[in-house]
Amino acid sequence: MKTRAAVAWAAAKPLTIETIDLDGPKAGEVLVEVMATGICHTDAYTLSGLDSEGKFPAILGHEGAGIVREVGAGVTSVKPGDHVIPLYTPECRQCKTCLSRRSNLCTAIRATQGQGVMPDGTSRFSCEPVGGGNGTVFHYMGCSTFSNFTVLPEIAVAKVREDAPFDKICYIGCGVTTGIGAVINTAKVWPGANVAVFGLGGIGLNVIQGARMVGADKIVGIDVNPSKRAMAEKFGMTHFVNPKEVGNDKVVQAIVDLTGGGADFSFDATGNVDVMRQALECCHRGWGESIIIGVAEAGREVATRPFQLVTGRVWKGTAFGGARGRTDVPKIVDWYMEGKINIDDLITHTLKLEEINHGFDLMHEGKSIRSVVVY
Amino acid sequence: MKTRAAVAWAAAKPLTIETIDLDGPKAGEVLVEVMATGICHTDAYTLSGLDSEGKFPAILGHEGAGIVREVGAGVTSVKPGDHVIPLYTPECRQCKTCLSRRSNLCTAIRATQGQGVMPDGTSRFSCEPVGGGNGTVFHYMGCSTFSNFTVLPEIAVAKVREDAPFDKICYIGCGVTTGIGAVINTAKVWPGANVAVFGLGGIGLNVIQGARMVGADKIVGIDVNPSKRAMAEKFGMTHFVNPKEVGNDKVVQAIVDLTGGGADFSFDATGNVDVMRQALECCHRGWGESIIIGVAEAGREVATRPFQLVTGRVWKGTAFGGARGRTDVPKIVDWYMEGKINIDDLITHTLKLEEINHGFDLMHEGKSIRSVVVY
Repeated sequence: MKTRAAVAWAAAKPLTIETIDLDGPKAGEVLVEVMATGICHTDAYTLSGLDSEGKFPAILGHEGAGIVREVGAGVTSVKPGDHVIPLYTPECRQCKTCLSRRSNLCTAIRATQGQGVMPDGTSRFSCEPVGGGNGTVFHYMGCSTFSNFTVLPEIAVAKVREDAPFDKICYIGCGVTTGIGAVINTAKVWPGANVAVFGLGGIGLNVIQGARMVGADKIVGIDVNPSKRAMAEKFGMTHFVNPKEVGNDKVVQAIVDLTGGGADFSFDATGNVDVMRQALECCHRGWGESIIIGVAEAGREVATRPFQLVTGRVWKGTAFGGARGRTDVPKIVDWYMEGKINIDDLITHTLKLEEINHGFDLMHEGKSIRSVVVY
Repeated sequence: MKTRAAVAWAAAKPLTIETIDLDGPKAGEVLVEVMATGICHTDAYTLSGLDSEGKFPAILGHEGAGIVREVGAGVTSVKPGDHVIPLYTPECRQCKTCLSRRSNLCTAIRATQGQGVMPDGTSRFSCEPVGGGNGTVFHYMGCSTFSNFTVLPEIAVAKVREDAPFDKICYIGCGVTTGIGAVINTAKVWPGANVAVFGLGGIGLNVIQGARMVGADKIVGIDVNPSKRAMAEKFGMTHFVNPKEVGNDKVVQAIVDLTGGGADFSFDATGNVDVMRQALECCHRGWGESIIIGVAEAGREVATRPFQLVTGRVWKGTAFGGARGRTDVPKIVDWYMEGKINIDDLITHTLKLEEINHGFDLMHEGKSIRSVVVY
């Protein structure tokens, strides 16, 4: 079949809207009509060319929502008509990691997903060969939601309720789950805990509302941009620290003072390794845990004195919020529909597919929290 | 009263045996006759002058066992005749940390203990003023077990059973509890887990026997000294990796291969920050936890790529094995008496107080696992 898609032909070039070929689902795969997709920093990171796993040409996009239109042989967990959210972290429920119950980082299709192909080693996307290419267009993060239709392994779709709006719940495919999941799955923030959140972008705001949802006490937000304050307060931030005001070398002490000894949990949503260190060191002696969410630049390292750990602080990280996609994502959709979490205010721009490059511009300019493309 | 003691008059000088003055216990304090004391690397570290908190003259020693001889006003938890182990990490059961139930790092007397004095700000030890001094001799880690008699706060002694031999259970005052506690309190190693232990000295051997006690599966020991192998195997090590044989840059891969994907838990008992990094990075993707036990040189930092944490590894540390002294130390004495753990083979040398400097020499020369001074 043919599908419209925004194609990334090469690193650091704008996407172009094309009509390309899509093979139907093979055994264990499903064809999904993507109804809406968010534009995430990770898409921009890969498009920039810095992602060592990035392959071109490819169809980016990993934060979508849509409808199953066809299923391949042997597919039993979803059927045509089901509403689904594609999962860049699948959940096979069979691999060592899934069976461990200790991690969401399912390994069933990791190798092929990282190479931009389906588990059988081939791509479903193709186009007329141009230049020296053979016409193959690669998948991205197993999702490729910048295509109106896409094919995914059955284990990489979460079935969700049908009354949830696609243009909102697509954000649960990455940012919302990453932020809220970091709070509830990775950190397991307890009621009454004091929390520090570094970086008040889309992920940080979702950490904040996750912390509020589970009954955190003080929720301290840290950002160099004071214009982030109002929105963060709306999502539950109780105290604001601006490193440019208190001095970057006094941020840790400011948080220790605000929290009466240090944060019980801190979250880095900046990707800056120096901030990650502050996030660890503002934690309470004896038990404070710091969770790295942000993706650092290639080659950068985090560092601290081991004394910070020996005196009881814990350094962790999280991917996709520690969420098991097929199990946990439908619950987060429920929470949105029940009004427990706010997504609407985070989606600042809704665009057509033809406007997708504008969505990247808005993100780079800091003008959007999340732009969503509606097909 | 008078007491014999090994006094550290200045950094990097041998101890000298003196008869000094000891004031009796004030309110909330107890007088203990020390019957035996171990000689630990931490004593040597402070004696070397590198410890920024080290004060001289002082009576070092923090790994003892003895008998309560007198109690001050208001003391209720012990009485004269009770057998006790002094605690450099006290357990007041009243401070924020004790009440948190999340850490053993009781803060009740931390400030004064770090200054070498009792909670009222004064020392109980004194001598004839010499040179420019005023005769004050400082306490050390709140214990000063290199004195035949010492005074401690009531919250800094663990009451233990009376049939346990002092010359063995003194080691529970530091090394045994640190190693076994790291396994059971900090890591919470589960039965069937795969464990990697870096550094097969006294602490590492106690980690190994702790891992065996809780039913670990593979217990991989890592040390550059092949002569450590036999003793480690006696304590439960199942596999040995010598970085000098496999190549230091292949240690992580060797452990990943041996454990079928990485250690569920790893422990650094070396104090070397480069080894601490190996210990983290040999952990299993998704859930492996690395526990720093060793104390690094002043100013050194640990580092890794944040990707290691984002993909599920956890970096922790432990002090006194996460043990609450008054609660947990008596249990470890019981385990020794019941034959669950082996201390006898770890105590390679028993010395008289007059031979204490020889004990330091044996340690520096790598000839002892633990030397114990018996009064």
